[in-house]
Amino acid sequence: METFSHLESEVRSYCRSWPTVFDKARGSRVHDESGRPYLDFFAGAGSLNYGHNNPVLKSALVDYLVNDSIVHSLDAYTVAKRDFLKTFGEVVLEPRGLDYKVQFPGPAGNNAVEAALKLARKYTGRETVISFTNGFHGMTLGALAVTGNSMKRGGAGVPLGHTATMPFDNYMDGQTPDFLWLRSLLEDSGSGLDKPAAVIVETVQGEGGINVASAGWLRGLSALCREYGILLIVDDIQMGCGRTGPFFSFESAGITPDIVTLSKSVSGYGLPMALTLFRRELDVWEPGEHNGTFRGFNPAFVTGTATLDAYWRDEVFEKETLAKGALIGERLDAIAADHADTGAHTRGRGMARGIAFPEEGVAKAVCAAAFERGLLMETSGPEDEVAKLLPALTTTVDELEEGLEILADSVRAVVRVPQPA
Amino acid sequence: METFSHLESEVRSYCRSWPTVFDKARGSRVHDESGRPYLDFFAGAGSLNYGHNNPVLKSALVDYLVNDSIVHSLDAYTVAKRDFLKTFGEVVLEPRGLDYKVQFPGPAGNNAVEAALKLARKYTGRETVISFTNGFHGMTLGALAVTGNSMKRGGAGVPLGHTATMPFDNYMDGQTPDFLWLRSLLEDSGSGLDKPAAVIVETVQGEGGINVASAGWLRGLSALCREYGILLIVDDIQMGCGRTGPFFSFESAGITPDIVTLSKSVSGYGLPMALTLFRRELDVWEPGEHNGTFRGFNPAFVTGTATLDAYWRDEVFEKETLAKGALIGERLDAIAADHADTGAHTRGRGMARGIAFPEEGVAKAVCAAAFERGLLMETSGPEDEVAKLLPALTTTVDELEEGLEILADSVRAVVRVPQPA
Amino acid sequence: METFSHLESEVRSYCRSWPTVFDKARGSRVHDESGRPYLDFFAGAGSLNYGHNNPVLKSALVDYLVNDSIVHSLDAYTVAKRDFLKTFGEVVLEPRGLDYKVQFPGPAGNNAVEAALKLARKYTGRETVISFTNGFHGMTLGALAVTGNSMKRGGAGVPLGHTATMPFDNYMDGQTPDFLWLRSLLEDSGSGLDKPAAVIVETVQGEGGINVASAGWLRGLSALCREYGILLIVDDIQMGCGRTGPFFSFESAGITPDIVTLSKSVSGYGLPMALTLFRRELDVWEPGEHNGTFRGFNPAFVTGTATLDAYWRDEVFEKETLAKGALIGERLDAIAADHADTGAHTRGRGMARGIAFPEEGVAKAVCAAAFERGLLMETSGPEDEVAKLLPALTTTVDELEEGLEILADSVRAVVRVPQPA
Amino acid sequence: METFSHLESEVRSYCRSWPTVFDKARGSRVHDESGRPYLDFFAGAGSLNYGHNNPVLKSALVDYLVNDSIVHSLDAYTVAKRDFLKTFGEVVLEPRGLDYKVQFPGPAGNNAVEAALKLARKYTGRETVISFTNGFHGMTLGALAVTGNSMKRGGAGVPLGHTATMPFDNYMDGQTPDFLWLRSLLEDSGSGLDKPAAVIVETVQGEGGINVASAGWLRGLSALCREYGILLIVDDIQMGCGRTGPFFSFESAGITPDIVTLSKSVSGYGLPMALTLFRRELDVWEPGEHNGTFRGFNPAFVTGTATLDAYWRDEVFEKETLAKGALIGERLDAIAADHADTGAHTRGRGMARGIAFPEEGVAKAVCAAAFERGLLMETSGPEDEVAKLLPALTTTVDELEEGLEILADSVRAVVRVPQPA
Repeated sequence: METFSHLESEVRSYCRSWPTVFDKARGSRVHDESGRPYLDFFAGAGSLNYGHNNPVLKSALVDYLVNDSIVHSLDAYTVAKRDFLKTFGEVVLEPRGLDYKVQFPGPAGNNAVEAALKLARKYTGRETVISFTNGFHGMTLGALAVTGNSMKRGGAGVPLGHTATMPFDNYMDGQTPDFLWLRSLLEDSGSGLDKPAAVIVETVQGEGGINVASAGWLRGLSALCREYGILLIVDDIQMGCGRTGPFFSFESAGITPDIVTLSKSVSGYGLPMALTLFRRELDVWEPGEHNGTFRGFNPAFVTGTATLDAYWRDEVFEKETLAKGALIGERLDAIAADHADTGAHTRGRGMARGIAFPEEGVAKAVCAAAFERGLLMETSGPEDEVAKLLPALTTTVDELEEGLEILADSVRAVVRVPQPA
Repeated sequence: METFSHLESEVRSYCRSWPTVFDKARGSRVHDESGRPYLDFFAGAGSLNYGHNNPVLKSALVDYLVNDSIVHSLDAYTVAKRDFLKTFGEVVLEPRGLDYKVQFPGPAGNNAVEAALKLARKYTGRETVISFTNGFHGMTLGALAVTGNSMKRGGAGVPLGHTATMPFDNYMDGQTPDFLWLRSLLEDSGSGLDKPAAVIVETVQGEGGINVASAGWLRGLSALCREYGILLIVDDIQMGCGRTGPFFSFESAGITPDIVTLSKSVSGYGLPMALTLFRRELDVWEPGEHNGTFRGFNPAFVTGTATLDAYWRDEVFEKETLAKGALIGERLDAIAADHADTGAHTRGRGMARGIAFPEEGVAKAVCAAAFERGLLMETSGPEDEVAKLLPALTTTVDELEEGLEILADSVRAVVRVPQPA
Repeated sequence: METFSHLESEVRSYCRSWPTVFDKARGSRVHDESGRPYLDFFAGAGSLNYGHNNPVLKSALVDYLVNDSIVHSLDAYTVAKRDFLKTFGEVVLEPRGLDYKVQFPGPAGNNAVEAALKLARKYTGRETVISFTNGFHGMTLGALAVTGNSMKRGGAGVPLGHTATMPFDNYMDGQTPDFLWLRSLLEDSGSGLDKPAAVIVETVQGEGGINVASAGWLRGLSALCREYGILLIVDDIQMGCGRTGPFFSFESAGITPDIVTLSKSVSGYGLPMALTLFRRELDVWEPGEHNGTFRGFNPAFVTGTATLDAYWRDEVFEKETLAKGALIGERLDAIAADHADTGAHTRGRGMARGIAFPEEGVAKAVCAAAFERGLLMETSGPEDEVAKLLPALTTTVDELEEGLEILADSVRAVVRVPQPA
Repeated sequence: METFSHLESEVRSYCRSWPTVFDKARGSRVHDESGRPYLDFFAGAGSLNYGHNNPVLKSALVDYLVNDSIVHSLDAYTVAKRDFLKTFGEVVLEPRGLDYKVQFPGPAGNNAVEAALKLARKYTGRETVISFTNGFHGMTLGALAVTGNSMKRGGAGVPLGHTATMPFDNYMDGQTPDFLWLRSLLEDSGSGLDKPAAVIVETVQGEGGINVASAGWLRGLSALCREYGILLIVDDIQMGCGRTGPFFSFESAGITPDIVTLSKSVSGYGLPMALTLFRRELDVWEPGEHNGTFRGFNPAFVTGTATLDAYWRDEVFEKETLAKGALIGERLDAIAADHADTGAHTRGRGMARGIAFPEEGVAKAVCAAAFERGLLMETSGPEDEVAKLLPALTTTVDELEEGLEILADSVRAVVRVPQPA
């Protein structure tokens, strides 16, 4: 541990909640160096939807490496990239009627977001991008400007601009009609809102507290964008790749974004990879206008292709995810009901779930208690008020039951159950 | 090819210079899917300093994967990360007397730059960062603001600010004393330059045209920064990890930057990884103030550790690089001399070299001719006027001779040699 | 006229509604060069609250000039400035319990606004200023950033930032609770709204369409600002100096702003002058930190002092204004009622009044018809949908009756009265 | 005095150098309330080129007011405005072959600058404006961004952007070729300087320290602007209206700016007034796109017209100014020569002159000594190192001699003359 405290910056964070040194991992189990196993309900913040070191992907990856296939290729053409593009077209885009072009904007989600924002501004010739309360899109300066968290924004060291924040679904009193404020601003030439290039939205805000946008709200947003000629960017970095059931989280709302960002589980094995997808006519990039070193990391193409072949050629996986998500939801509801006096309540969709505890520090304490009991979870939300569950989609029902039992126990340990008088 | 043109964004670029589909790679050789070999003198724009699929690194990597060691771990503690930090401390930092903290800012070089800029601004409470003509630091909004290239800047879609551009070494007429302008601005409270947080500089501008800063100029810059309380950031993403001989490119100048960025060859195998290093007292980050998904990509730690163990525990590698660099330099000088009438001249340091052709289009044509002859090279500089060589540092002398001969032939093919009357 | 079209920029605007050349003026009457009289219900957009060439002020002004008293004095001390300050303290500040310091920020309202914004940002160390939909604060870059009108904002030629727009009173559906949105943003550390330095508000938006903030809304805003440590700036440039009855328009709401801007009628004679007032403890300016050439225009101090002596030493003037305002309101209500089928409705407070016509072009046509009939009026609102009345406060009841009759006639001429079938 | 310290903001500045209360003024003499006369060599920082309360202008002004001519008229057409425009066209524009349109941008110089910047950005569709070291253009946010002084810039409270600072004439070592740096940046697509909309320059920097741009430098700048399609804005607010001899200060260089700003002495009587002039084809303003309350202050038009009729219909005034300027220059040279050991040296052109004392505090002490001796002067330059003379152009030779004698005496009193050993 001393190595870390001596050499690694104070910026490190997850390690503070999980004070051990991890070593091995497979599926939903992680082992620390002492051999102690943990059930992982965080899954790399949604980067490990197919589990740690998924054997199907591993086999493809190791084969690729062993054969001296090309690993790093900038944005040159490679066999692995072609296979990925082809499979992505066949398995993901075509069946959904999405006539998208694919950009490899860099290895991280923030690269996908930065490229999306740049393209939207270039295409429209406008500058303002609308983001939503508690949205999270990344730490680079462009992405940070559409991120809500004040601590992270403060780290910029310069003012963040060219953006406007709007209420996410169900943000205020639950009574204000959707988009009343945004529509008023757009309709009024004296509102002070410069005409936006785009809106950027998550269908479920993962970092923001597992806030779920309803299908109706998403449809309303999509219609509003179309009405006013504003591009709709769905940031599906955390909620895409099946996290909510379907491949894209926006499918269930029946909308077609102009631009989509993907990362985290797109390679499926935790290998850095990101995509920016956009309607064909938006492809106004000049060659090389947005470049970068790690846009051709072929092992990620290989495992990404393998995820599509293994999980997305039929509807089985999606259905299982929905079923497991329902199971988690029910169990969380039961836990919340047991502690109704604390104001605990549940949130989520698919396998992105959370239980919110209004009292300060409770969610954090629950996660700490879970860690002691061998379950990895993290908080989210502006005040860390939500204990968040993002298990691998491949987690078995038994593992889910096991983890949820640990969670229930952890909550009980933290929140004293009121005794009958 | 149709797959690419149908599905991949027009932003793709290197593939336009190298119109083939690559498949295998080892050392300095790459093979396309037809089996045709190419000698690679571009090395992933400096990401493959140890060659493609270097067997020492490969062995460590495959072992790690096969054993189901943890691949993705956000910024949790892992055995692989501890090994990397420890080795980096022992092999790189301690021998050079560098009391740096290490930040894992994200997988890409731009993440390292964004983190460096944010930290410099936070630490100093100032906003302006000074960059240099033809500097290149990345495509995200913060990094782009310190990048000179107008086409890439134009892609931002919003004005880029909080920066000021200054002349790089030997920029103007070669007569103006170094830092005359910058020092004048800093000394004059009426100059209009707000007091800077930092300067960010490359010791050799790779994308900018293989422009080499002299040791004297770098020492002058370092002294100026200290005099005025400005932080010195060396962006060593392309020139670090031995590209110019020593591990850090600034070592030969005898300076100690306040902040250093590394990426590209830090993992050594083309795996996405980046580091931001800074003096211990600058570590004012709050936990989680700059975060991201792919900061704990363990395979990259493993290969990164392997590079340090294999190449940096003694001085052999550095000396070989300097010798090979001298060889390349001599051969390029000879080529330039053969075409002195074209104004051709050479640039570079260590194994970052280039030959500049003032006439428009010549460098591009030379690289195209080289590709036809089985040599991969690219241009750099604001007008693509430099044919740039960044061979793997592990390229053998025979391979260097072979490639330089192809280059000489390619130049001859493009530039008609003047005939005696 | 040719002189104007040949030599004056196309930016000229009021002259387009009033196509004649004015020559003489007294009280509420203006004469053009042919001798034709006009009743002026615009009063220099609120700059002539005491009428054109008010004889009391004129006498003081001419005496001052004839005696070779100093006219221009930068910000040196002068007798005229001391008299103004003393009188302003005695007549305006002390009786209202306002412990304000007075800044002479330059001759125009925008100077007062720019100084207010700079001071608020300097004092708080924060950057964001909240403005309201359809707010109007001036054309210089800082003031324009808090102005809503999109055409005027577009003239900036650069993005306008460091601001956030919020709904003015009764902006949306009339059902959303006041400040629900702003309070939500302030309470939520993940909202994306950086903590504001200040809000800037007009109690009645003159340019924005005679939108009246209720006393309750203003009190709510004031309380919210105090609760969150945000400075409250009331821009009283158009509505101050008695336009709504009391000297300051915010008096009736019982609030005490942190900063107040005044201009327009502060000199009372149409002489350029502006004031920025602020709580004593906010006076953190360095000497000369905000300067300018015309901050010591003594004739304006002289007429300004004369207005205070003549109109503000007792409550008569305020009461007369309220009575006249009520009269105007009643008559406008009657006109609107006569044309209820057009959706016409009235707005206003004190002697700032308007009648809104939802149908495009009607208000403009009404003003044109009034001009033909010898009455000067202008439109306001984002779509020029309001015929606006800002008569001099000294306008007699007979003149008011006369003008309102012309207005009624003009409306009838434009809006065909529906005939019984 | 207590009135001021109790009620006026600490931002007041000139009054600190001249601790008395002024009352009367005529020509170059000002009297304080005790009746003590002062010779005024500051002339309202160049606002009183025709002296205090010039009788010719006074007569026109008082006549205008006494006759109840219209005083305030927004931007409506008036007889007084037409007379001004016509006379300005006949006397100023036509004889100099300047096909300019005239904008009345507001009453203050900063309004003229803001309008110029907005128009240049709108016309070109670009954002960056180049300013020069020690330039001064005003305190509103747009004007401040092109102003060099760090204390004043700091007052903005937000970062100032969309600008780049370049070296003024003779800024550095006197050896660097003119425009070497700017031309390098413009020619190099990788320089990091976004293509500028405009440059804004003073021919003599008044606030910046009486720094004189040579005619050659100005011609070079004008040629560079034309070559690169950049608009040239000359800010002639302090140096125009005859301060350097000709009406416009740029006439002697033989250049024709695209945009010119005027204020200060344009009304001639210290009445707030400003003009933005521009080539006819640049007049792309929409009606009302830049507006404001005090753009139709008719008394200023009246005195402005009177200055043109009285002083600018022949060349007598210009020649007298040049002769007086030469006289001042000679006397200042002699004073500097007497104190050559202090490094004192002179600067200036026409009747804008200064004597610089390198040692800190000397210039300030000289001005204080002059005030004690009945002479009003001020310092300028980033470190207040220049004692600046801007006497009214109508100052008689006798008055000049008298004032210069006081100055010589003041310098002697401050700088102890070295005694022979």
